[in-house]
Amino acid sequence: MKTTIDIDSKEVGRWIEWLAAFGYTKNGGVTRLLYDENWRLAQFSLLQKMKECGLNPYLDGVGNLFGRLEGTLQEEKAILTGSHIDTVIDGGKYDGAYGIIASLVAVNYLKERYGLPKKTIEVVSLCEEEGSRFPLAFWGSGSITGKFTKDDCHELYDTKNISFSHAMLSMGLQTEREQVKREDIDCFIEIHIEQGAVLEKEQKSIGIVSHIVGQRRFTVKVIGESNHAGTTPMPYRKDSMHLAAELITYTLNQVTEIDSQLVATVGKIIASPNVPNVIPKEVTFTLDVRHHQEEVLDFFCGKIIAYFKQKSIESGMNVEWEQWMDVKAVAMDDRLTKLAHHIVQEMEIPNRTMISGAGHDAQVFGTYCPTALLFVPSAGGISHSPKEHTDLEDLKRGIIVLIEFLQRLAY
Amino acid sequence: MKTTIDIDSKEVGRWIEWLAAFGYTKNGGVTRLLYDENWRLAQFSLLQKMKECGLNPYLDGVGNLFGRLEGTLQEEKAILTGSHIDTVIDGGKYDGAYGIIASLVAVNYLKERYGLPKKTIEVVSLCEEEGSRFPLAFWGSGSITGKFTKDDCHELYDTKNISFSHAMLSMGLQTEREQVKREDIDCFIEIHIEQGAVLEKEQKSIGIVSHIVGQRRFTVKVIGESNHAGTTPMPYRKDSMHLAAELITYTLNQVTEIDSQLVATVGKIIASPNVPNVIPKEVTFTLDVRHHQEEVLDFFCGKIIAYFKQKSIESGMNVEWEQWMDVKAVAMDDRLTKLAHHIVQEMEIPNRTMISGAGHDAQVFGTYCPTALLFVPSAGGISHSPKEHTDLEDLKRGIIVLIEFLQRLAY
Repeated sequence: MKTTIDIDSKEVGRWIEWLAAFGYTKNGGVTRLLYDENWRLAQFSLLQKMKECGLNPYLDGVGNLFGRLEGTLQEEKAILTGSHIDTVIDGGKYDGAYGIIASLVAVNYLKERYGLPKKTIEVVSLCEEEGSRFPLAFWGSGSITGKFTKDDCHELYDTKNISFSHAMLSMGLQTEREQVKREDIDCFIEIHIEQGAVLEKEQKSIGIVSHIVGQRRFTVKVIGESNHAGTTPMPYRKDSMHLAAELITYTLNQVTEIDSQLVATVGKIIASPNVPNVIPKEVTFTLDVRHHQEEVLDFFCGKIIAYFKQKSIESGMNVEWEQWMDVKAVAMDDRLTKLAHHIVQEMEIPNRTMISGAGHDAQVFGTYCPTALLFVPSAGGISHSPKEHTDLEDLKRGIIVLIEFLQRLAY
Repeated sequence: MKTTIDIDSKEVGRWIEWLAAFGYTKNGGVTRLLYDENWRLAQFSLLQKMKECGLNPYLDGVGNLFGRLEGTLQEEKAILTGSHIDTVIDGGKYDGAYGIIASLVAVNYLKERYGLPKKTIEVVSLCEEEGSRFPLAFWGSGSITGKFTKDDCHELYDTKNISFSHAMLSMGLQTEREQVKREDIDCFIEIHIEQGAVLEKEQKSIGIVSHIVGQRRFTVKVIGESNHAGTTPMPYRKDSMHLAAELITYTLNQVTEIDSQLVATVGKIIASPNVPNVIPKEVTFTLDVRHHQEEVLDFFCGKIIAYFKQKSIESGMNVEWEQWMDVKAVAMDDRLTKLAHHIVQEMEIPNRTMISGAGHDAQVFGTYCPTALLFVPSAGGISHSPKEHTDLEDLKRGIIVLIEFLQRLAY
């Protein structure tokens, strides 16, 4: 790696462990859910750290934490860099947390080395991204970008039947709040763990994301007839398991035929009555489809739904499908992406352009302001697990790239 | 129907309702489990009925109830006719019960019309067939034929943790019992509802069973790798759901290619972790295969297992299978089956030879003494359900055939 920037990777490791302590689980993971006690401790401890780093910290009305380093040009707009503070239940130490720490370490480094930037930089610890507590995700970035308002949360309850409003109030955050949506964001820069194994398998240190995929999710229900496994000859059967297996096989076989970057997953299946000696009356399965081009998603979904219809007619069974998620693909900013490429090439860091198959805050910002998303490798591609891990040297390389990136943008 | 025999079908209906009252459920079904209170009431009320019909009733050491009509030839051997008194949970009024009632009505008719038979006839209400309370089925017929001894039940417990021995003792039936196995059975004649829809669909009134199928049951486990549904490109996946769907599709498609009387069922499927956005690590499914010829079962099972092995190698995933049931096919007695055919042809009753795809007490007796099994239609093929139903005229026709059958054998 060719650069004059140097940071202490052990120090980065200490930051990771420090933040992971807020919500550390007995399995070695982290559970830090929106507005819970660990979330509060983490956000307020980060606020203190920002202060110590010479940033001007403040919380907005939904609990997003910002640490502001005022630019000398006194422009209105600010460069935002960070990620989310919340985790899934028993998640890892790196998902979201790394992006916040990387931003804080980077801005601190720049301030120490170069003093105040020309453009204002704000490190952000977004309050929520995972949707782990309430049935709503991207609450932090969604509030800043105006995608969500307080009306979107009033009717929501967590699994303990605590209302969203009550949870927010308990943190001293009013739901009848001042404007949280911002009009002064110049761009958003996020660094995140890959949560997949592509960088590791290809021995790359940095992934530069060109697109975040669109996601469509379906529930497919095959309705046959329940009958005795011994006394019903094959021609008399309406075997929902047989048809479901055919639909799943066809669907997943089609994926690689259509596009090498298309992915589809049948993650969940429920048969009824689900006993060995009864022909299942009903089999329900989910289908998760992702690609960064709407037309590919359209083509694939159209093709399999045509097949479902055809098989429904042929078999005399009902096949019902319901789409319950439709997230559009988002392109990252071309200028920022080119800058990232330029930097990693100059630094001679092994890198690749990537499509992000997972959702990120950068996806919400990407439709609102110029946005860049960088990945560092995930060991074994494991994420949302206590086993989530990224080597210290990879964490360090990511921060060095981020430092250089912010330096070019703000100084 | 050409016959001089006539019985009152309404009277048969009253018998069915009378027996169904012991264990009647709120859904309109019957729950009468081995050695429970309803079982006891049913068995002792039947004993009383047998007495009223002029039979000599007695219970054996495991609770099988016999009603004996002594033959004038004073031979040692007895013709046994009947079925089982127990039901599945919330089962129907006909499964088992019809065979007992039919036998009792038939023997009573013969005694009234012709007096004592030459050969001894015993009506039997077998204590257990379904395996609904303890993990053991065919306890009644298995005890009579010596397939089971008291040693087979000592370690068994029901879902309320009541031991088999305790349940039996509470009925006054000692487990340290006298010999229950009998050496004096001439033949066993059972009439039963079909529990399938073949007779109904083909508009036949009587099924004459030539074989009871052999059954093999397997659990198949496909072990892949759990990964993020978005961040794992298709070539990097070890998707256990995809492979399981292929194996199920192949298996069930093969059935009709191999033999028209072969049946196979995948009744149960469990995926892990079973969430929409995670590639399943493991999918486990059951496979139930039935046919009346061992060589067909061998060929089918051999073929699919070869395919499992091939796909396991191709996919780099583990496919494990375990066979946990291997019940051999049993042929019914040729002479008795021919006699049954002769009778239904003489009576001009629409009939067909059938393979029984379900297990019956006749299967246990069939390896021990000459055995015949007759079926009457099941409405819609429904069984093991409160909706189980057979028309009174069908019940009546079955009893008339049984009367003629017993008359030819015993008088």
